[in-house]
Amino acid sequence: MNKRTFLQAGLAAGAMAATAPAAALAQAKAEGRKLGYAMLGLGYYATQIIMPRFSECEHSKLTALVSGTPDKLAKYGAQYGIPEKSRYSYYTFDRIIDDPTVDIVYVVTPNSLHRTFTERAAKAGKHVMCEKPMATSVADGEAMIAACKAAGRKLMIGYRSRFEPHNLDAIALAGGGALGPVATIVADHGWTASDPNMWRVKKALSGGGSLMDIGIYSLNAARYLTGEEPIAVNAMESTDRSNPVFAEVEDTINFQLLFPSGATANCVSTYSANCNRYRVSGPKGWVEIDPATSYGGQTMRANLDGQAKPRTPPAVRKSQFAGQLDHLSECILTGRDPIVPGEEGLKDLRIIEAIYQAAREGRTVKL
Amino acid sequence: MNKRTFLQAGLAAGAMAATAPAAALAQAKAEGRKLGYAMLGLGYYATQIIMPRFSECEHSKLTALVSGTPDKLAKYGAQYGIPEKSRYSYYTFDRIIDDPTVDIVYVVTPNSLHRTFTERAAKAGKHVMCEKPMATSVADGEAMIAACKAAGRKLMIGYRSRFEPHNLDAIALAGGGALGPVATIVADHGWTASDPNMWRVKKALSGGGSLMDIGIYSLNAARYLTGEEPIAVNAMESTDRSNPVFAEVEDTINFQLLFPSGATANCVSTYSANCNRYRVSGPKGWVEIDPATSYGGQTMRANLDGQAKPRTPPAVRKSQFAGQLDHLSECILTGRDPIVPGEEGLKDLRIIEAIYQAAREGRTVKL
Repeated sequence: MNKRTFLQAGLAAGAMAATAPAAALAQAKAEGRKLGYAMLGLGYYATQIIMPRFSECEHSKLTALVSGTPDKLAKYGAQYGIPEKSRYSYYTFDRIIDDPTVDIVYVVTPNSLHRTFTERAAKAGKHVMCEKPMATSVADGEAMIAACKAAGRKLMIGYRSRFEPHNLDAIALAGGGALGPVATIVADHGWTASDPNMWRVKKALSGGGSLMDIGIYSLNAARYLTGEEPIAVNAMESTDRSNPVFAEVEDTINFQLLFPSGATANCVSTYSANCNRYRVSGPKGWVEIDPATSYGGQTMRANLDGQAKPRTPPAVRKSQFAGQLDHLSECILTGRDPIVPGEEGLKDLRIIEAIYQAAREGRTVKL
Repeated sequence: MNKRTFLQAGLAAGAMAATAPAAALAQAKAEGRKLGYAMLGLGYYATQIIMPRFSECEHSKLTALVSGTPDKLAKYGAQYGIPEKSRYSYYTFDRIIDDPTVDIVYVVTPNSLHRTFTERAAKAGKHVMCEKPMATSVADGEAMIAACKAAGRKLMIGYRSRFEPHNLDAIALAGGGALGPVATIVADHGWTASDPNMWRVKKALSGGGSLMDIGIYSLNAARYLTGEEPIAVNAMESTDRSNPVFAEVEDTINFQLLFPSGATANCVSTYSANCNRYRVSGPKGWVEIDPATSYGGQTMRANLDGQAKPRTPPAVRKSQFAGQLDHLSECILTGRDPIVPGEEGLKDLRIIEAIYQAAREGRTVKL
């Protein structure tokens, strides 16, 4: 199967799936056909968190590696049985256009490189999974969406919590009226950054500090828990610029959101405390997860009848990581759009820019 | 003992206590001398929460009642053995000047009446315990402080959490460096208001909505946990004015505080969800209480070594209510100032006015 026949097969599968998505998935499974991922950027998250999860996937497999470090290509190539011809440097990456084993490129680089690799992947005819934040500016995010659209390829952002059972349960509870109309969301995300040399505190690579890295989880949670887009934003920053870690990016930037329904969110984003939790509350009760958006260990409590109790969400078949990887493959096989497409990443980016503006100007920014 | 000799005795005790407070308290205890409280305003909080706690007190006793409802005076007068001559209506209240059994008047009326009763109590030569918020405006709070100062009487505000063991432990942990420099405080206080007829939603009586009533706990906690005064305030309000409950006052008004050390606070104040908790976090750990400022049932967790664990605070001898009541008595006996004097209430009021202004004007208000 060369690139052309593959693309045609993909189109055919997509056309079929629009009328019968379940049948398309069943057929792919019966044929043992899995979509191939190239991992681009072999850091901790890609190699230690994502790559081991392909073994759980029904519709996805790891078929290529892209890295600037030859030793990593050799090590993980051997470990995952990736042939040398499917190991790419950033210089040889564009040759991936001729690699029929690759359907999707998963971009896991520092944030400011997401745009260029997404554009190159789309130009090579590949679908793209891109880590969050999708880019370091709204302009870059728009360009990525345009590039994938022009190439007729799908773009999905790595919002893995949307495939995590506790988060899915909280979304269902909040959206299903179990809490009454959502009144307040409190979402706190942070960790203690102490290494002044990591790329996350270099503005040219990260685009910003805690908000780009971890505060985005508070923001995205407030949006998926309400199912609404905020109409106003407040923010307050606290950064010790004399600390070399924070010479270029913000430490703490807490923000407030107001949603059209009247729901509000108070969100923490910090590099000076470890926190990973949220609670969504309404007149009839609340549900909280702590930790909420971590790689594992989610713990849930709900107060639905005047008493706080531990809660176990309905089981799901796959980890959040495999769920995320397979979702894009399923969307390609069935011709559907991902639930967290590029446009979802762009919505977060627009609000992130509003948060920075609100903090800088000391005023409520309307959206 | 008439009023004059009583006042002289009080002055003498105060003078002695300045040099030997412990001795003054021991002597009062040995003599079985307790300071007498008049409860002014016989609603739920006074009659069901406070009055039963005098039995726990070492230095305080209930000696008079003030109410606009004769039935209440009769009922609680009989229950607590208060003689008829020490039962006052709001019209006869000023005669309390001649009641030597009363040292302190505890004002538990709707907020907007705090000023006038504090002034009348001070004019009658009585010390004053006043519920929070101390008043409905900074101007009223200042007048109350001036009235008590002019009368040479003490004014204390009913911040009972300052006598509650879990809160004391959290203050000690945060202030003692166990968390590292405090980075963020998240404090959420709310309950679900549904009665459009209660005084709390009548602006002329309450001065404001959830912030005056329950959000003040979030605010006061952020201040006692940092031991600092905020220098900047953001706020975001969400109120459905078509709901008769909220025709006059705000429902949700969440706020953010920035402290001189760089510590930040994200606070919820709402009448549309039940919440009563806070967490204070720094780079080395966090401590949380949930419920935090309730009448009882405080539950604490701390993460001081990378793991969240239940925590039991050091025991204290008395309930927060008895601790609060006795504190003012002890201050009078020893000539000391209360830890939560009128000035403490005034600090909250100034910030409350800034919070309303920040929400109204959509901008950061500097303090």
